[in-house]
Amino acid sequence: MTPARRYVAEGLGTALLLAVVVGSGIMAERLAGGNAAIALLANALATGAGLVALILMFGPVSGAHFNPVVTLSAAWQGRHPAREVLPYLAAQLAGAFAGVAAAHAMFGLDAYTASAHARTGAAQWWSEFVATFGLLGVVIGCTRSRPGATPFAVAAYITAAYWFTASTSFANPAVTLARSVSDTFAGIRPLDAPGFIAAQLLGAAAATVLFRWLYAENKESL
Amino acid sequence: MTPARRYVAEGLGTALLLAVVVGSGIMAERLAGGNAAIALLANALATGAGLVALILMFGPVSGAHFNPVVTLSAAWQGRHPAREVLPYLAAQLAGAFAGVAAAHAMFGLDAYTASAHARTGAAQWWSEFVATFGLLGVVIGCTRSRPGATPFAVAAYITAAYWFTASTSFANPAVTLARSVSDTFAGIRPLDAPGFIAAQLLGAAAATVLFRWLYAENKESL
Amino acid sequence: MTPARRYVAEGLGTALLLAVVVGSGIMAERLAGGNAAIALLANALATGAGLVALILMFGPVSGAHFNPVVTLSAAWQGRHPAREVLPYLAAQLAGAFAGVAAAHAMFGLDAYTASAHARTGAAQWWSEFVATFGLLGVVIGCTRSRPGATPFAVAAYITAAYWFTASTSFANPAVTLARSVSDTFAGIRPLDAPGFIAAQLLGAAAATVLFRWLYAENKESL
Amino acid sequence: MTPARRYVAEGLGTALLLAVVVGSGIMAERLAGGNAAIALLANALATGAGLVALILMFGPVSGAHFNPVVTLSAAWQGRHPAREVLPYLAAQLAGAFAGVAAAHAMFGLDAYTASAHARTGAAQWWSEFVATFGLLGVVIGCTRSRPGATPFAVAAYITAAYWFTASTSFANPAVTLARSVSDTFAGIRPLDAPGFIAAQLLGAAAATVLFRWLYAENKESL
Repeated sequence: MTPARRYVAEGLGTALLLAVVVGSGIMAERLAGGNAAIALLANALATGAGLVALILMFGPVSGAHFNPVVTLSAAWQGRHPAREVLPYLAAQLAGAFAGVAAAHAMFGLDAYTASAHARTGAAQWWSEFVATFGLLGVVIGCTRSRPGATPFAVAAYITAAYWFTASTSFANPAVTLARSVSDTFAGIRPLDAPGFIAAQLLGAAAATVLFRWLYAENKESL
Repeated sequence: MTPARRYVAEGLGTALLLAVVVGSGIMAERLAGGNAAIALLANALATGAGLVALILMFGPVSGAHFNPVVTLSAAWQGRHPAREVLPYLAAQLAGAFAGVAAAHAMFGLDAYTASAHARTGAAQWWSEFVATFGLLGVVIGCTRSRPGATPFAVAAYITAAYWFTASTSFANPAVTLARSVSDTFAGIRPLDAPGFIAAQLLGAAAATVLFRWLYAENKESL
Repeated sequence: MTPARRYVAEGLGTALLLAVVVGSGIMAERLAGGNAAIALLANALATGAGLVALILMFGPVSGAHFNPVVTLSAAWQGRHPAREVLPYLAAQLAGAFAGVAAAHAMFGLDAYTASAHARTGAAQWWSEFVATFGLLGVVIGCTRSRPGATPFAVAAYITAAYWFTASTSFANPAVTLARSVSDTFAGIRPLDAPGFIAAQLLGAAAATVLFRWLYAENKESL
Repeated sequence: MTPARRYVAEGLGTALLLAVVVGSGIMAERLAGGNAAIALLANALATGAGLVALILMFGPVSGAHFNPVVTLSAAWQGRHPAREVLPYLAAQLAGAFAGVAAAHAMFGLDAYTASAHARTGAAQWWSEFVATFGLLGVVIGCTRSRPGATPFAVAAYITAAYWFTASTSFANPAVTLARSVSDTFAGIRPLDAPGFIAAQLLGAAAATVLFRWLYAENKESL
């Protein structure tokens, strides 16, 4: 597998992920008639189902990170080549913004509009810390001991995290930045993005330290 | 496996798929009392669950294409015998129309009625392009590297695509034609069908070119 | 595995299946405040999820038929010993009625009350024919070529069939009889049960003939 | 795998489980606008999806019990070392209370508030007996004959049990105690907790006796 293929897979996969997240949010809000619970049910179901398909299809090519903190954590653990960190991050960011534009075009909206959806404060940041901590735990744990189940574990985790965190679990800096230019159900105000990303980085770092220790002896156990 | 068995499997599987799509749409609309989000949730859940069962059960016999663009793409890649393309397409079309009639009979409706549901315009066509591009990507990627997971990946993808595309993701010319004679939740005006089918063919062609390249070296990787 | 263990597994599994079907119907109706679509979503989700667990847990012991037409079809195909047909049917029936009583007790209802829920007419019978035909197709196909996926295929099929058939897919004579003594969401009038059961027997017979032919050469294909 | 790692895995996993159960209940109640069926759908979906991820990720380390009656039953069967029973129970309890506080913090609530949600009476206790009996049956059956499917079986069972029992299936003494200090959707009055726990212990004991017998000869069957 040449690097070019891996980078294209990361970019295309992240684009499709954003199309799923933002597109299903728009559809859900349009159809739900103001019932936010039904809208979030649809958004969570679509995101979880989309992740199953996207990780299954792109995993064998690029690992299906779709998320800068997953790439950074893998590199820190020595499981991702250092020279491929920046290309992965660039592909994820470019893909994320392309995906938002693709979703907007499907629903007849402008390519980008700054979001007016306020998401800030300690409870939101703590939510993003927990959400990202758990996501990295799922990734580190499953890729070490049950790689075949990882697509289902990650998708299930995110489906749950849309509901159990107060922030609906962005847990991904590329996703956060791209959703800041979508003034829709899934949006976040641009000025609130840095707080989310800081919490995500801290959550990912904490998870990497803890779960490396937790799974250290486990390589041969399953 | 004789060809006759494969053709019967394609026809019967496509018939059951249409029965699921159209039947669950009718039930959803009748029960949802005008709440389109709940109706689409039920329709998406039923379609995704039905696809899991149908692809698991017919896959070992015919490959469970149920979709002319899947068959055409497979033939283009040299993975489906050319002499079996037309019989597959005929079986899919015949099955699709039989399935609509079967669903209508379950709900006491006439066998066929032209749909009055308008679905047209650039945003809808772009939606069908994206929907079919992604579907073919899932099919090409999973059948090459994770064949056992294909039924789950395809079903999950379609569940998501009902929500993240503005067209609710027909992504299938046989399904599109058959749904044009169902004046129910799942219908599409006959005059809007050609635009959908053109977008589907373009999306499938783009996906075949791109994903053949992406997975070219991957045969031995998992 | 002694026969006694198999019979207990069939009886207990069918009891838990009825507890799931009837209990979740009662809970759904109580909470949904008259919205039948939300009630059926909950009932379908609970039934499908329950079937995954029950077939996984009892399958290795008894085959997890939980359904007289599955047992009869297996015996017809020579895949179930003739002398164990009647004990299986008896266990399924006893279990089904015990499960209804268990569910009613959980919700503070009498053990048995005749249902007043009318379900009759050609459209309903055709629905039961289709529902049972498809269910037997899933069972025959998956047990021959993908036994490990059978629990997921059957559960997914029934989840879909709750929505795509007008009868909400009973597809099981023991379930039909037991639901006739539950005057709740899942009930059926006792006088309507024979019509359902006749349609189920015909659907199962048609499926057994067709799918035996379809999978005849397939033993070695996956 | 050192004991310390197993205890941390049990504690952290139980904490995340409670965060999922309590957090998604709060979110569901806030968004659902009084529609209890939609709230329970979201709560059940999030809990089931969360369990898939948590059992997949922690199972290879600690067995992913997250539940005192699972640990006690395993010890009774000689499948868990006696000297690790108390540490497991302590880790589960500490984790459960930490998880509730984590969820409350995500939604801006005090760490602990006694619940005012009454859950008592024979129908509720019978519900908890049935819920726990079934859960232990799933655990005992799947871990003996289909260990790889256990995460999916347990998650599916709990999703169903939220709906088919009148108590919404606590089925876990540590979860019950921790939910007694959450005055939210998932709460239970402290004075009602002992009745639930007694019913859970009885259900677990009955299941251990019955399912040990049922699966006694089955070690080599799959």
